[in-house]
Amino acid sequence: MAKNNGRTEISTLGEFGLIRHLTENIRPVQPSTQKGVGDDCAVMDFGKIKNEELKIKNAADIRVLMTTDLLLEGIHFNLEYVPLKHLGYKAAVVNFSDIYAMNGTPTQITVSLGISKRFSIEDLEDLYSGIRLACERYGVDLVGGDTSASMTGLTISITCLGTAKDEDIVYRSGAKEHNLICVTGNLGTAYMGLQLLERERVANAEQPDFSGKEYLLERQLKPEARRDIIAKLREAGIKPTAMMDISDGLSSELLHICHQSNCGCAIYEDKLPIDYQAAVLAEEMNLNIVTCALNGGEDYELLFTCDINDYEKLVPIDDVYIIGHITKPEFGAVIVGRNGEEMMIQAQGWKAF
Amino acid sequence: MAKNNGRTEISTLGEFGLIRHLTENIRPVQPSTQKGVGDDCAVMDFGKIKNEELKIKNAADIRVLMTTDLLLEGIHFNLEYVPLKHLGYKAAVVNFSDIYAMNGTPTQITVSLGISKRFSIEDLEDLYSGIRLACERYGVDLVGGDTSASMTGLTISITCLGTAKDEDIVYRSGAKEHNLICVTGNLGTAYMGLQLLERERVANAEQPDFSGKEYLLERQLKPEARRDIIAKLREAGIKPTAMMDISDGLSSELLHICHQSNCGCAIYEDKLPIDYQAAVLAEEMNLNIVTCALNGGEDYELLFTCDINDYEKLVPIDDVYIIGHITKPEFGAVIVGRNGEEMMIQAQGWKAF
Repeated sequence: MAKNNGRTEISTLGEFGLIRHLTENIRPVQPSTQKGVGDDCAVMDFGKIKNEELKIKNAADIRVLMTTDLLLEGIHFNLEYVPLKHLGYKAAVVNFSDIYAMNGTPTQITVSLGISKRFSIEDLEDLYSGIRLACERYGVDLVGGDTSASMTGLTISITCLGTAKDEDIVYRSGAKEHNLICVTGNLGTAYMGLQLLERERVANAEQPDFSGKEYLLERQLKPEARRDIIAKLREAGIKPTAMMDISDGLSSELLHICHQSNCGCAIYEDKLPIDYQAAVLAEEMNLNIVTCALNGGEDYELLFTCDINDYEKLVPIDDVYIIGHITKPEFGAVIVGRNGEEMMIQAQGWKAF
Repeated sequence: MAKNNGRTEISTLGEFGLIRHLTENIRPVQPSTQKGVGDDCAVMDFGKIKNEELKIKNAADIRVLMTTDLLLEGIHFNLEYVPLKHLGYKAAVVNFSDIYAMNGTPTQITVSLGISKRFSIEDLEDLYSGIRLACERYGVDLVGGDTSASMTGLTISITCLGTAKDEDIVYRSGAKEHNLICVTGNLGTAYMGLQLLERERVANAEQPDFSGKEYLLERQLKPEARRDIIAKLREAGIKPTAMMDISDGLSSELLHICHQSNCGCAIYEDKLPIDYQAAVLAEEMNLNIVTCALNGGEDYELLFTCDINDYEKLVPIDDVYIIGHITKPEFGAVIVGRNGEEMMIQAQGWKAF
C-alpha cells in the first residue's frame, strides 16, 4: 500500500479490498454463527446457541432478538473529541445494551459504514478495532455489513441479533401496580461527560483539562452494557416485569414503560443514583444535576420493574437502586421532590428539528 | 397537526410521535414475528416459519439469514429524480434480493433513517409507503428501526432477516468445473435507466422525455427481487451450486464466485441477455452496451451456476439465460467476444474515492 505520513488513502485498496482488509482474521466465537462475512448474507443456526448458559433444553424455546442503531456525525458524535476507536466500541455496545434490556444475550452484528474521502485506511482500522474489541469483550460475532462512500459525514449503522429463552424475555409492557422501579449504575453522568468535552473543546482546545473527571469522559465515550446486572438478576432468581435500557433519559424511558404497561409511576428525587464527579461538575457549570439525571440520555443503564416480593433478593445486588414504584394509570408519572412536592414527569425527545 | 401547503414539519410530532405515526397499523404477517416495532428489540420465533413453503419438518433444520444495505443521498440516489416512494421500495427490495440470492425467504426488516429538516412528515410518509408496499408484496414484516435527525442528506439503512432450510442454502463458494453459468432477466438496463435520468435532468429538466423508455426507468427506480426464479428453480428440482445477486455488475460478481469457488469461468458476449430499449439508448448515447451489461450494476438479477445435468430442467424456465461455464482456476475469468477473441474480466468497484 502507498503510505504517506501514516495515512493510506482508501482508494489504494478499493471497495472490496477495504472490506477484506477490515474483516480479515475475524473468527466467529458464537456456535450459532454458521457463515459470517463474505457472502450475500450471514447464516445463523440458532439451534446451536450456548445451551448451558441459557439452560435451553428445547430449540423451540429459543427466540431471536433484533435491534438497530444509527449513528450520524454531527448528531450523535463529534470527531473533534471522540476518538474513532471509542466511537466504534460505543456503536457496538449501545446495540448490545438493547439486547440485554430484553433479558437476552447478543450474538451477532452487522456493521454498515458510510465514509468520506477524509478518512484514511488507518482511521477505519481504528474504528473497526473499537467495534472488534467490543465484540470480543461481549462474545459477539461481526458477521457482515455494507461499506460505502459518503458525500458528507461518517455514518455508522449497526444491527444486532441476540437470543433468549421465550419465558425469559422482558418487554416494556409488563409493569404492574406496586412493582418496584429500579435503575442500575448512575444517571446523568454520560451527559455531564459530554458537557465537559464541549466545554474543554471551546475553552481549551490545546490543553483540555479533564483531571479528576476521567470517569465522566469514560461514561460518555466508552459506555458499557449491563451484562453483569442481567447475570446477577438471573442468579438471584429475579425476572423483571418490565425492562428497557436508558438511552434517551430516565424520564422518557419511564413514560414508555407507563404507556406500554398502562400504569403510572412515582419516583423519588432523593433516590436517584448520582455520581459525585457529575454532581460537582454540574454545580460548576450551573446545571441542575437532577434534570441531567432525568433527561441526559446515553447512560445505557437498565431501568426495570420487579415484584415487591423480590425485594429481599434485590437488595444484595450491587449497583441496583430502587427509585420508586408503579402506581395506577390515573396517577400519571410523577417525581417526588426532596421537599415532598410532586411534579409530572415530562417527555423529552429529539431537539434537532 | 399544523399543516402548511400540505407540508407538515417533523417538529410537530417529535421523535416518538413520528415513529408511532410511521409505524402505526403495521400488522405482522410472518408467523415468526412474535413482537414487532415498540420495544428495545423485535422478537422472532423461527420455529414458527411457514413450514409448508420450505417443507421443513424439523426446526433444527432452519437457518436464519441476515443482510444489510446502506443507501446514502448523493451516492446511491439523487432526490432530484428519484421519488421517495420508489426509493423506499427499492431500499427494501435490494435487501430481499440478497436473501433470495442465498436461496432463502425474506421475513423481517428493520429500517433506520437519518433525516434532515428539509423533509416533511409527508415526505417520510411517501418513503415509508414505498417500504411498506415492498414488504406487503414480498410478505416481509417491518419489525423495528431507528429514526434520527441528520445534519446532511437522507440516510437509509435496512437490515433484513430471512429463513432457509440448511440444505437449501446456496453460497458463492460451490461452483465446480463444467457447471453452467446462468443469469436471469437482462443486464445493464438499470444502468441505462440511470443514464437516461441523468441526461434528461441536465438537458430537459422542465420536460424530460422518457417516452418509449419507461422500462429502463422502472429497472432503475423500482427494481424487483427474483423471488419468481427462486420458486421456479425449486419447482424444477434445481439447486444451484453457487449463487449471488447482481448488484455491482456481472464482472465483479463473477470474480467473487471464481475467487470463492476457486475456479475460472468463460462467458460469451453473444449470450448476455440485453434489453432492446437499453441497446437503443446505449447506441444513442455512444455507450458500449456490453460494457454496461458487465459493469453497470443495480440490476438485482441472479447469477448462478448449476450442474450440467440440470440443463434439460433449466431450459424450460422463462427468463433464465445460460451465458457460459465454469473452468479450471488457472484459466481465469474470461469473456469470449463475438469475434472469438478472449478477454480477461476486470473487477469494478467503487469509484467514489
